[in-house]
Amino acid sequence: MTAISQQVRNGVDTAQMYGTLDAIKADPSLGRFQFRVANEWQGGAHNRSTIQRFYGAGQEDASRERPFTLDAGEPAVLLGHDEGANPAEALLHALAGCLTTSLVYVAAARKVPLTRVESRLEGDMDVRGCLGISGEVRNGFEHIRVTFSIEGDAPEEKLREVLERATARSAVFDMVSHGVPTTVELG
Amino acid sequence: MTAISQQVRNGVDTAQMYGTLDAIKADPSLGRFQFRVANEWQGGAHNRSTIQRFYGAGQEDASRERPFTLDAGEPAVLLGHDEGANPAEALLHALAGCLTTSLVYVAAARKVPLTRVESRLEGDMDVRGCLGISGEVRNGFEHIRVTFSIEGDAPEEKLREVLERATARSAVFDMVSHGVPTTVELG
Repeated sequence: MTAISQQVRNGVDTAQMYGTLDAIKADPSLGRFQFRVANEWQGGAHNRSTIQRFYGAGQEDASRERPFTLDAGEPAVLLGHDEGANPAEALLHALAGCLTTSLVYVAAARKVPLTRVESRLEGDMDVRGCLGISGEVRNGFEHIRVTFSIEGDAPEEKLREVLERATARSAVFDMVSHGVPTTVELG
Repeated sequence: MTAISQQVRNGVDTAQMYGTLDAIKADPSLGRFQFRVANEWQGGAHNRSTIQRFYGAGQEDASRERPFTLDAGEPAVLLGHDEGANPAEALLHALAGCLTTSLVYVAAARKVPLTRVESRLEGDMDVRGCLGISGEVRNGFEHIRVTFSIEGDAPEEKLREVLERATARSAVFDMVSHGVPTTVELG
């Protein structure tokens, strides 16, 4: 193996990873991040988010040359025209993405080579809440189930341990399972 | 105005809306929905969600001919290659989308014509939590601020009232602000 191939594990540059961790340990202010989304209504249940700049590692980050755009829609049965995944599905995507990346980073740090990571997520909702028909059910999912299928060069017990650590450190798992103080205002 | 133009308000077919609400009121079991996401790791901080079928309104819904795909990535400073918005940004998109659609539906029901809806979202995070450097900060956002800019044929007080009702009924606002019981398992 070359020096390069030893440095990259699971597609993560571990030298860069340890460098980042050391830099933030030395100056905790580098850990302050702010992420942002701008959203614009397109008509009906269709709206679009634009995502580009953020603040982090001590500066305004302008490295993304183009914005990401994400469309939200609703299926016909929920009065839309399917211009995009609906917002509840987008939340499951956020959760899947964060758990997976957290898993990949933890595995890289613990020298566990992964070959396959897949997950399936299900969220159960009684839409009588969000449609304003019933005050007895909550608006959001009653519960969310995430099932991972993971393959790598480690015994199952080790993969399970990595998944547990990844879950315990995932930003979106923390937010979805514990909630975040959120203010909504008319500007 | 024609019958058609009277029926559609803010891009929402209000006759269909009232029909849907009446049907679920008559048979609450039609309000049971299950949304699903399948996610597959692509390497490093890049993973992809596929979203297509769901259960709702008493049946497995197969109306979407093609799946939606959503990519998650991380910027360079967080050890990725920007293959997509990062999961924390995707969560903000989910919140923006749900609040906006909830607003549009509530306005349609209350006969408030909207002409413009925009929102900006900010989430502050100390990444020492999710990077495992500090146990003294949480992994996710410490708080989220959502600021709406809304124009329509109604006084500002009415628009504010519609926004408050929309927030109170939003599925994703409920989940993000209150949390959801979430299980993560190795399948």
